[in-house]
Amino acid sequence: MANIGYFNDAKKEYVITNMRPRRPLSNYLWNELFLANLDNFGFGESFLRISPEERRVLFPCWDATRLIYIKDKATGEFFDINRNYQNKEFTKFECHVGIGYQQIVSEYKGIETEFTITVPTEGHAELWRVRVKNTSNEAKSINVVPYGRPAANVTTHLAYGHADYEASLGGLYYYHDAFAVDHNYSGIYMKASELPLSYDLSDLNFRGFYNTYENPVGMANEKLSNKGTSFDDSYCCAMQFEANLAAGEEKTYYVVVGISTGVDNAIEDSAKYLAKGFFEETIAEVKRIADDMDRLYVLNTPDEYINTMINTWLKRQISLGKTWGRVCSKGFRDIMQDAAGLAAFDGKMTREKIILCLTHQRPNGNPMRAFDPIARTPYYDGAAWIPATILAYINETGDLTVLDEVCPYFECEEEGTVFDHMYRGIRFLLDNRGARNMVLWGGGDWNDSINNTGYMQKGESAWLSIATVKAITEFCRICEIMGGKEDLIAKVKEEQAVLKAAILENAFEGDQFIYGITDWDEKVGSKENIEGQTYLDAQTWAVLANMLDKEGLNKVMQTVEDKLKCSFGYVQCAPAYSKKDEHIGRMAYFIPGGYENGSVYNHGVAFKLVADCMLGKADVAYDTLKLISYDNPANDNSGVEPYVVTNMYLGPQDPYRPGFSYYSWITGTAGWIYRGVTEFILGVSGDYTGLKIKPCIPSVWNEASVSRVYRGAVYNITFKRTGNYKLIVDGTAIDGCIAPIFPEGSEHTVVCEF
Amino acid sequence: MANIGYFNDAKKEYVITNMRPRRPLSNYLWNELFLANLDNFGFGESFLRISPEERRVLFPCWDATRLIYIKDKATGEFFDINRNYQNKEFTKFECHVGIGYQQIVSEYKGIETEFTITVPTEGHAELWRVRVKNTSNEAKSINVVPYGRPAANVTTHLAYGHADYEASLGGLYYYHDAFAVDHNYSGIYMKASELPLSYDLSDLNFRGFYNTYENPVGMANEKLSNKGTSFDDSYCCAMQFEANLAAGEEKTYYVVVGISTGVDNAIEDSAKYLAKGFFEETIAEVKRIADDMDRLYVLNTPDEYINTMINTWLKRQISLGKTWGRVCSKGFRDIMQDAAGLAAFDGKMTREKIILCLTHQRPNGNPMRAFDPIARTPYYDGAAWIPATILAYINETGDLTVLDEVCPYFECEEEGTVFDHMYRGIRFLLDNRGARNMVLWGGGDWNDSINNTGYMQKGESAWLSIATVKAITEFCRICEIMGGKEDLIAKVKEEQAVLKAAILENAFEGDQFIYGITDWDEKVGSKENIEGQTYLDAQTWAVLANMLDKEGLNKVMQTVEDKLKCSFGYVQCAPAYSKKDEHIGRMAYFIPGGYENGSVYNHGVAFKLVADCMLGKADVAYDTLKLISYDNPANDNSGVEPYVVTNMYLGPQDPYRPGFSYYSWITGTAGWIYRGVTEFILGVSGDYTGLKIKPCIPSVWNEASVSRVYRGAVYNITFKRTGNYKLIVDGTAIDGCIAPIFPEGSEHTVVCEF
Repeated sequence: MANIGYFNDAKKEYVITNMRPRRPLSNYLWNELFLANLDNFGFGESFLRISPEERRVLFPCWDATRLIYIKDKATGEFFDINRNYQNKEFTKFECHVGIGYQQIVSEYKGIETEFTITVPTEGHAELWRVRVKNTSNEAKSINVVPYGRPAANVTTHLAYGHADYEASLGGLYYYHDAFAVDHNYSGIYMKASELPLSYDLSDLNFRGFYNTYENPVGMANEKLSNKGTSFDDSYCCAMQFEANLAAGEEKTYYVVVGISTGVDNAIEDSAKYLAKGFFEETIAEVKRIADDMDRLYVLNTPDEYINTMINTWLKRQISLGKTWGRVCSKGFRDIMQDAAGLAAFDGKMTREKIILCLTHQRPNGNPMRAFDPIARTPYYDGAAWIPATILAYINETGDLTVLDEVCPYFECEEEGTVFDHMYRGIRFLLDNRGARNMVLWGGGDWNDSINNTGYMQKGESAWLSIATVKAITEFCRICEIMGGKEDLIAKVKEEQAVLKAAILENAFEGDQFIYGITDWDEKVGSKENIEGQTYLDAQTWAVLANMLDKEGLNKVMQTVEDKLKCSFGYVQCAPAYSKKDEHIGRMAYFIPGGYENGSVYNHGVAFKLVADCMLGKADVAYDTLKLISYDNPANDNSGVEPYVVTNMYLGPQDPYRPGFSYYSWITGTAGWIYRGVTEFILGVSGDYTGLKIKPCIPSVWNEASVSRVYRGAVYNITFKRTGNYKLIVDGTAIDGCIAPIFPEGSEHTVVCEF
Repeated sequence: MANIGYFNDAKKEYVITNMRPRRPLSNYLWNELFLANLDNFGFGESFLRISPEERRVLFPCWDATRLIYIKDKATGEFFDINRNYQNKEFTKFECHVGIGYQQIVSEYKGIETEFTITVPTEGHAELWRVRVKNTSNEAKSINVVPYGRPAANVTTHLAYGHADYEASLGGLYYYHDAFAVDHNYSGIYMKASELPLSYDLSDLNFRGFYNTYENPVGMANEKLSNKGTSFDDSYCCAMQFEANLAAGEEKTYYVVVGISTGVDNAIEDSAKYLAKGFFEETIAEVKRIADDMDRLYVLNTPDEYINTMINTWLKRQISLGKTWGRVCSKGFRDIMQDAAGLAAFDGKMTREKIILCLTHQRPNGNPMRAFDPIARTPYYDGAAWIPATILAYINETGDLTVLDEVCPYFECEEEGTVFDHMYRGIRFLLDNRGARNMVLWGGGDWNDSINNTGYMQKGESAWLSIATVKAITEFCRICEIMGGKEDLIAKVKEEQAVLKAAILENAFEGDQFIYGITDWDEKVGSKENIEGQTYLDAQTWAVLANMLDKEGLNKVMQTVEDKLKCSFGYVQCAPAYSKKDEHIGRMAYFIPGGYENGSVYNHGVAFKLVADCMLGKADVAYDTLKLISYDNPANDNSGVEPYVVTNMYLGPQDPYRPGFSYYSWITGTAGWIYRGVTEFILGVSGDYTGLKIKPCIPSVWNEASVSRVYRGAVYNITFKRTGNYKLIVDGTAIDGCIAPIFPEGSEHTVVCEF
């Protein structure tokens, strides 16, 4: 197996020991308005979110974003400790991926350096801690030079910019006071816990025009240039310090690099961030928040990796989505799904996200594709995602008041209750049907990349029709819980039956569902097709929507196994399109194996995992999960971070890099895998009337345990394989699979025999 | 003096011998639709212009854009010949900046390599020639690897892209067939004059993920990877060849890298470009065109540098502007001025440019700020530039028919003759006046960066008022030439007199003109101001517009000498603004010394040179020219290319890099300096009735000669200092300063004593 590193569960760290993995491994640090995306070298972008449309970048995503240079004054030898550009033979070189920090540690010729980066829980700055330790047997005099490449130019007009040492700050300040810019974040500053011996503000001086980061002029010289700069497109921030360390002695420097509205603001902020203990308290605070969240669901199975992911890392990944969506934007369906995933940890947040999403629903019931910034592409699936999230919220919290909360429709005077929003969504889906009585495809559905099949308002999406069937079931369940809605339930159930019949008549091919029918009356995802014959989601959602009896669904899922399985997961569709097809859209222009066009698109694989569980196929579900794990021996050097799930592995039809994961973190897969494992494999989920416990545990596990907070009470659940399902709550066997609701703060022992 | 290189006039080359100058030195290669901007390493952007709004990039502007790697197979040592990333001790390393080509030559351990880049006169490709020569005494076997980093991704969606060796092409092909892209240039190709031994299409394979261009994996290996790639963001193009050279033997490879609409297009184009002799013929053809242009005005003065610039390099710089405007856009006033500069070489082109510009004039007479793409900023000065260019065209060609040509107004049904356009422009200026009867400032004038003084339609620009006075004089001269327009002349002259009086009353401070008065009734460029007290253009244009008697103008120009002169030119204004001022706009947000805010903005210095000549101050004019020359000892390491003029030197108030030139080439300075030298210092200019010869030659020159084509006849003019002006044409002294018009093709000897 590819050697990458190891989990240190006690510290909630992943320790990267192979500092040159197939691709750099990413971590995110963030607060509500500031985000840093750092790789194992500490390189990567950080920025302040000013508005949905505007960001102020602190460090762009480029090489040498942040470096810690060290120079042994006795020998004159220098190197950077976190990228090791010079390929020195470090005796230690690792990156600790932490919850809320990134820590690179290296050791070379008796100097150990630790470079830790964090982001304060409020504000717009990065906090760096640099610890140097003399691990040799003799005294050493060393220069320590924290260095970075900030985005000091706010606009492209270099003439607005200048930078210099600012005595009132005791640090470096970068001015870019541009005319007619609509925010005040004109400045960047760097300040350290002590005054620098020398400094640089431009790579013209520090690196030198024709030098590289391997041999910067500034490090070769005794001092940095102490020169300011203007009209520059190569700003840097560098400060030189000197540590005279006895054998074994260490010294710590704190550095803050931040965005500021002016020098006064920089003075104020940096004083706060450099206050004694602030750095350590920040990391402790982020960890406390994570620990509080982690305690809400603690899993213990024979699969250590799954435990670690569920107990810590998927929660971390979901937290990123909670605050930042997909970072580049907030998709309606994405946030809705994330919100459902969050319900078990943070019901309040789920409720907030539901309201936030619904304010981006048009009065006709169809939501915007995305917000933050707004994407007006006329996708038609948004409404189908609303009931599931509201139901998850109600099941988890028991809070029905959300349904009465009034919130506006998008860009109009109208407003309505959450229930009204949800029902208008159902109506949008039911009232926009095609000639075959299936739901119109419009500009697209979950599959963003089938985006040219329905503009003429003729194409019909079988998947969206199936999703509508599912949504109606959830909607009716919500109505049942609310009570007094029998007429409405009867009405929509009748409509659901008609829709279901239309799907079975037009989209069912005996052992598979097609994906849809285009404006030109062509089937997509049908046996009739030469390419794109079978689509994963149409089959898995048939299970989720209970479109057939169990036998029928098993047959459909067997098609998935036969047609879509590969050695590292299940592909979105097969065979992938190799020819451009305007009647399909973007997807049929992607390379075979890319994104929806036949990649192992893990969001879809997570749906499949849930579908397997719904059909009771525990081993298949578990195998599915292991196929897409980073340590699948058939794809163990995919590039993926072991501590997150990736959105996609390039599919087996990619001729060059099948199995490769390009990026991770920002994918709805995290929430779905989390729910798949906790609510379907372990089978513990809120059910309005109590905590439902109905596991679907793989045959290789004979026992497992879950500690789960539900409505404020703790359920300590032990699973034991006996061959007969039995639920024992606080020593008493109960009928059915639902443990009762208990008072907040109480703790209960549950045994679930299976 | 900073050692940069030397001119080789015989080859029309500048040879850069210092390959690490203060900043890389730039050259442009182009045809009508394709442009490459290359520095002395051969790095830099190239692109195809698809439409005013859209470009297709071939090579972006990034490091290692193009490299030629060489490997000595006997030793295994490899290096790149054009950037020398490894800092090897090359025995030869120089760049020949040619007319239509860039040629880098290096020699290391017995291998001399010449890398020449050109652009065909039609089409969208770069042509490379690589010559390797064994300069040692023994046989050598070497690998030659041309390498580049093309922009193979047309969109940001990597999944559209793949690349591989394409057998039908016999070269590398990069596909990016994206959905819904509005042009067909999806592909990039690389093909060479022979089939490669091996190849690479991705830096993942060639460079290696963690390697640099100093030590690419591909060069360390025996062969390149021969692997295709997909979903890639690090495409490269590299081909390995092997040359087995006896001592003294050489071998030449031709390589084409182009943009294509498909493989068939690539096959067709590459066959054309790789045809025997095509490369050499392309360079010869570009040189022929340049030679033809150069012959139209040949200067010989005691100042070799001025001769070289006038005879070759300024013409080249003007040619770039002719085709590409300012590359990033085409400013109305910029193209109008360039067109005037062109009249002496290419009257037809001047006429075309006039018409092109006028189609971007609104029916109210005010032109757009820029086109290609359209810039709608409401600047008010556009119309003031029209008469001068039309007059220059008429004076040069004698062609009055241009005035009757009908062309449309911008974005409307209306159209009008060129004369109508010109007069509507005059009317716009005269009819949009403020309370003081000076011309309204609107969104700005020549000084783009005073852009917040006039939005309320109250601020008045003194400079624009002066420019209007000048424009009316030119307009009246055109009317005179046309004849029969006495009433119109009388009318506008009266209006001109009123305007002039208003300027003298409101904008004249005895020894200087102010620049204007803002919406808030505040003076700009006045003795009253603390910053921005004196503006260069207000004074120089007072001379150009003949605002005062000679004594008055001399006094005004003395203010320029006293207040605006520095050791490397004249600043746009002084003192520069150090404080933001919303009532001024962008300029007062720039760093002191940047752009209009106190830089030596050479366009303005060129106006000053002309003004000096108009006042007969030959030595001052010449000194002015020498102050901004690259070889001014007070600023001889400014970064500027010796073979072009720069738009700006950072002013003396810049605290960090006064005198630094950030970029060159794309500036109207070229045309104005050219006209300043040829039409004012040498004083040879078309005057409708004949060729005016009225020199203003500096006292350090006692003689000079000009060979000049005027209306198809050649005037071989010799200047001799005698102290008395006398014009002898074909041996006969004539009255006045205008040599007669001669038949096309005839050649005449003119002696001008002065």
